[in-house]
Amino acid sequence: MLYFENDYSEGAHGAILEKLTKTSMEKLPGYGADHYSESAREKIRLSCGCPGAEVYFLMGGTQTNAVVIGSMLRRFEGVIAASTGHVSVHEAGAVEYTGHKVLELPQKEGKIDAGTLKDYLQNFYGDENHEHMVFPGMLYLSHPTEYGTLYTRQELEEISRVCRSYEISLFLDGARLGYGLACRESDLDLADIARFADVFYIGGTKVGALCGEAVVFPEKAPAHFLTMVKQQGALLAKGRLLGIQFDVLFTDDLYRKIAGNAIEAADRLRGIFREKGYRFLLDSPTNQIFVILENKKMKELGEKVVFSFWEKYDDSHTVVRFATSWATSMDEVEQLGRLL
Amino acid sequence: MLYFENDYSEGAHGAILEKLTKTSMEKLPGYGADHYSESAREKIRLSCGCPGAEVYFLMGGTQTNAVVIGSMLRRFEGVIAASTGHVSVHEAGAVEYTGHKVLELPQKEGKIDAGTLKDYLQNFYGDENHEHMVFPGMLYLSHPTEYGTLYTRQELEEISRVCRSYEISLFLDGARLGYGLACRESDLDLADIARFADVFYIGGTKVGALCGEAVVFPEKAPAHFLTMVKQQGALLAKGRLLGIQFDVLFTDDLYRKIAGNAIEAADRLRGIFREKGYRFLLDSPTNQIFVILENKKMKELGEKVVFSFWEKYDDSHTVVRFATSWATSMDEVEQLGRLL
Amino acid sequence: MLYFENDYSEGAHGAILEKLTKTSMEKLPGYGADHYSESAREKIRLSCGCPGAEVYFLMGGTQTNAVVIGSMLRRFEGVIAASTGHVSVHEAGAVEYTGHKVLELPQKEGKIDAGTLKDYLQNFYGDENHEHMVFPGMLYLSHPTEYGTLYTRQELEEISRVCRSYEISLFLDGARLGYGLACRESDLDLADIARFADVFYIGGTKVGALCGEAVVFPEKAPAHFLTMVKQQGALLAKGRLLGIQFDVLFTDDLYRKIAGNAIEAADRLRGIFREKGYRFLLDSPTNQIFVILENKKMKELGEKVVFSFWEKYDDSHTVVRFATSWATSMDEVEQLGRLL
Amino acid sequence: MLYFENDYSEGAHGAILEKLTKTSMEKLPGYGADHYSESAREKIRLSCGCPGAEVYFLMGGTQTNAVVIGSMLRRFEGVIAASTGHVSVHEAGAVEYTGHKVLELPQKEGKIDAGTLKDYLQNFYGDENHEHMVFPGMLYLSHPTEYGTLYTRQELEEISRVCRSYEISLFLDGARLGYGLACRESDLDLADIARFADVFYIGGTKVGALCGEAVVFPEKAPAHFLTMVKQQGALLAKGRLLGIQFDVLFTDDLYRKIAGNAIEAADRLRGIFREKGYRFLLDSPTNQIFVILENKKMKELGEKVVFSFWEKYDDSHTVVRFATSWATSMDEVEQLGRLL
Repeated sequence: MLYFENDYSEGAHGAILEKLTKTSMEKLPGYGADHYSESAREKIRLSCGCPGAEVYFLMGGTQTNAVVIGSMLRRFEGVIAASTGHVSVHEAGAVEYTGHKVLELPQKEGKIDAGTLKDYLQNFYGDENHEHMVFPGMLYLSHPTEYGTLYTRQELEEISRVCRSYEISLFLDGARLGYGLACRESDLDLADIARFADVFYIGGTKVGALCGEAVVFPEKAPAHFLTMVKQQGALLAKGRLLGIQFDVLFTDDLYRKIAGNAIEAADRLRGIFREKGYRFLLDSPTNQIFVILENKKMKELGEKVVFSFWEKYDDSHTVVRFATSWATSMDEVEQLGRLL
Repeated sequence: MLYFENDYSEGAHGAILEKLTKTSMEKLPGYGADHYSESAREKIRLSCGCPGAEVYFLMGGTQTNAVVIGSMLRRFEGVIAASTGHVSVHEAGAVEYTGHKVLELPQKEGKIDAGTLKDYLQNFYGDENHEHMVFPGMLYLSHPTEYGTLYTRQELEEISRVCRSYEISLFLDGARLGYGLACRESDLDLADIARFADVFYIGGTKVGALCGEAVVFPEKAPAHFLTMVKQQGALLAKGRLLGIQFDVLFTDDLYRKIAGNAIEAADRLRGIFREKGYRFLLDSPTNQIFVILENKKMKELGEKVVFSFWEKYDDSHTVVRFATSWATSMDEVEQLGRLL
Repeated sequence: MLYFENDYSEGAHGAILEKLTKTSMEKLPGYGADHYSESAREKIRLSCGCPGAEVYFLMGGTQTNAVVIGSMLRRFEGVIAASTGHVSVHEAGAVEYTGHKVLELPQKEGKIDAGTLKDYLQNFYGDENHEHMVFPGMLYLSHPTEYGTLYTRQELEEISRVCRSYEISLFLDGARLGYGLACRESDLDLADIARFADVFYIGGTKVGALCGEAVVFPEKAPAHFLTMVKQQGALLAKGRLLGIQFDVLFTDDLYRKIAGNAIEAADRLRGIFREKGYRFLLDSPTNQIFVILENKKMKELGEKVVFSFWEKYDDSHTVVRFATSWATSMDEVEQLGRLL
Repeated sequence: MLYFENDYSEGAHGAILEKLTKTSMEKLPGYGADHYSESAREKIRLSCGCPGAEVYFLMGGTQTNAVVIGSMLRRFEGVIAASTGHVSVHEAGAVEYTGHKVLELPQKEGKIDAGTLKDYLQNFYGDENHEHMVFPGMLYLSHPTEYGTLYTRQELEEISRVCRSYEISLFLDGARLGYGLACRESDLDLADIARFADVFYIGGTKVGALCGEAVVFPEKAPAHFLTMVKQQGALLAKGRLLGIQFDVLFTDDLYRKIAGNAIEAADRLRGIFREKGYRFLLDSPTNQIFVILENKKMKELGEKVVFSFWEKYDDSHTVVRFATSWATSMDEVEQLGRLL
């Protein structure tokens, strides 16, 4: 069986496991106060060009979204997100559990544009009843989006400008950020993101770690953020587990290198699909490929390959997703190619 | 420097790291649906003598407490706990964040007794205004307690009987359960606990794992528990990280064996303290030792040993805690002994 | 100045104030246990043809929505509502504050149809990832809707059937229910609503009371509903204030009679608008009239009449709302007519 | 039957009902923007000697406590209260429902003293693990307390000083404030309270109104307080109901006068009890009298008088509470006296 179901099917990159093993008997303080976590934070600050950034490590994407949103919003505020955003659809109401509404905006290929955002904010404050409504307090973007698409530097800059003029924070969910950074089509680097966003995270779970997301506040974390992390049950006793992983990922550019592997594999796979005449649902340059399969083909292929059902296309076609990862080998891609 | 600060200073037992490494490139389904997690669940069911138990793996203690309490209580219910209970004091309000009150009861050496509980429940229902008060919905016990003390089988049975007669659930926090089970003084095994409690967890974080607590519902988990785990940001994408660790811990009795190491070390250390005439705050048979130190001695010792401040005893004495763990070597104990 | 701004500009119907005054020095038990509240409950049960119904009195619409939704949903469930529903837009996130998501469905003239609802539910359960999503637990309808439109008996029956086949409850917000019941175009009476809904409320605030909504559970209220009402700060010490008002409103058909006054006034006003060639945004048969005004006319009229801005129609036209109420006199309508 | 059960058994003072009736057909804006509400706010500002105070009207005590605490605390903070405080015991978890812990302190006759508070705060910040605990963010006092006792000016000043030195806010629950102000033994007036507290409320429900509590922020309300009031379901559409009542209560010193009636009645009743040799549980100078009754006497009296059971005293005695109110007549007191 070939696996292209998602980007979290394997354990962790070998270098991570090696370091976890080698350091295991060192006695270290808990809750992220160990020197590996500090080293990881320092490397991330450097990569982001933010010597004063505050960096925290959390376990996974939904947790990170709930903690960041729940700790940065004021009580009467909600978070704006694309209607296809992960927080809007696939987090079992984790944001609402913190008491905040997700204010859904229309999207295109998973992206929100600055104009739509501005109109929304303008209308909100223009409505004389807005004190009876949920105040927009933050914009949530995913980059890459749930459709594997990317914001350009200019798009992000414009969005950031709108956010700042309305004094709402900009939060970028980077669960798959590595794959965005490694993408030739992208003109954004970590320093850009740190300049445009008020908070963002660098995903580990989907890019080579056993678990872990590095939350970066380029300026300043909310006061007593650690206590709020604990309050949401997200403070890990053995913080070393996260610190060591990110320390390894940010040594010798490993994070970008292994993300690059996924992109190369995806590029090759896209090429094969294209050559063989398959249609794509949309153009996405990262590690997720959305293909429109004839139902019979889908069934046949499903016997030898694991992929994800995405949505019904029409009566005889279905959209499915193939994902590559830091661990996908070119050999697997070629094997899949031979089945297409 | 010698470390007796807590039981989570090291990484993980070697066998765990080895297995994580060896299985790392296997492609496995996420969210706990992998075969290692299933194997771990099955081994735990066997150990508990509960073939029908539902077992879930969560990351850490506070998270587990918040998820279990938040998903089992009805909205108008609170959780009864000792005033020294971890949920009462050291979880940054994680229980209250889920909307529930912690109803604190007086304790003795960290323990609640059946009589106190029964009186409380009787008074509650006897109060004609109780509809204006928080209903008791669950009893939270820690075993071993925060003071390292243990419930006897008879005590737990009596408490369980009171809970059942008032139809409140009994939740046993076993963050350090291994150390309780490994203790000669204890007459409780996992099957007893599974018989008396409605839900409990077997702590991994403090007993040899990188992270992880195994939540056991001997009868049945609340409907849609997985969704509620996700809603609290506690569902791990790579569930294998937890499943593999518990699979290793429950193979060849490893969990009990490594817990036994902590108990042997603690017994030896207690012996040394006793021989040298130190006084104890209380008699605790597990891996935590509470010693009353003369302040000058405490300062002197603090230069060579890391231990925990517990509380002021009197103007010239302080209570401090020494903790052993699965990783403590007898050599470290002897070195400490020579400093006393 | 003429007032057609809303239906809660006046105090209360004279008979209510008279009764409040006359009974004021009677010493009565608190929290709704007085005999006036019981009498009101009994009259409402009779009107609904539900001798076993449980009836509670709350203060206002948003409070009632938050309490009913917050006490009936399970933790992992959300409430389905039209995207224009009051709970979706104008309640400052009161539902999300209770931890629940509002699952917005597309609407037509403020109404949801059974087909849309069924598709949504079918797709939800058809999605293999639905355990990672918010479960639909309840349908919220407003009747009359925010656009003054009404469900027919057949529509409500079909919706109810879908809800029951998916085991979600049906909650009907009747903040303006009186105006719906008094409407000739409506074929629904209280007994129908009690048959189709699992919970609904009969609005007092907008139909002649100083405050108050009567929540009816035709079958059974959630266990310990009173405690949850208190927990949300919605339990009134002097429950008599609400009980007496509803007792008066449900004596000699007063509720329907005074609602009828609003409908007659609205009918006459609609006739005048029609005669004078004004266009309506939509056909709404109750006490709210949505008229498309030329901007110049709007400004001119605004100097002598208070009405509500609804939305921009085009560059030179605006939609405004005129509302009549139980207190509107025909004389006021004619005065307005002369200004049109 | 004679009624001394509580201070909310009657409806409202006649002047209030008269004004509600007389103004009923005036068309007024909603949500507290009417001129009666504004007039009431202005009179309250004057009474408090705070021309810049922000004043809001809410419905009842539990609601007010939940809204004030829930909107002033930061997410990681709890509210300190006496273990006998209303928020600690009798509000069905309304504070915890907002996500905040009630941090209970020992009390004496319902009162907290400045020293206890200071020790608590000192210990909290002295604990090196305090980041894992709930931060104290506010002190809640009731005045009069649940035991009818009063703080002196000096006591309140000392408490206020401690709060300010630790930067926590001081919230005074004045559900029965009128009875405190009217008490000869009290040396506190509204201006003192406004100087020492950061927020407090002037209770209407128990002092002559149908409902309503006037929340006073001597300096400044939290940003967007109105939206948070709405979010908690506490914003009344017909704000006039509250505004008119407080406007009447603060005209010609009515609030103090009718509160004075309760105190005179209570003083006379205390005198009778004393003369006849009854024992008191404690000395409370306001409108609540706690008497230790022989059980036989209690039973006998209970056939002719309604009073409240408070607590068991010993095997043959019980503590019961007699409450007078703005509506108690001296004749009722004398009738009761004859039964003693």
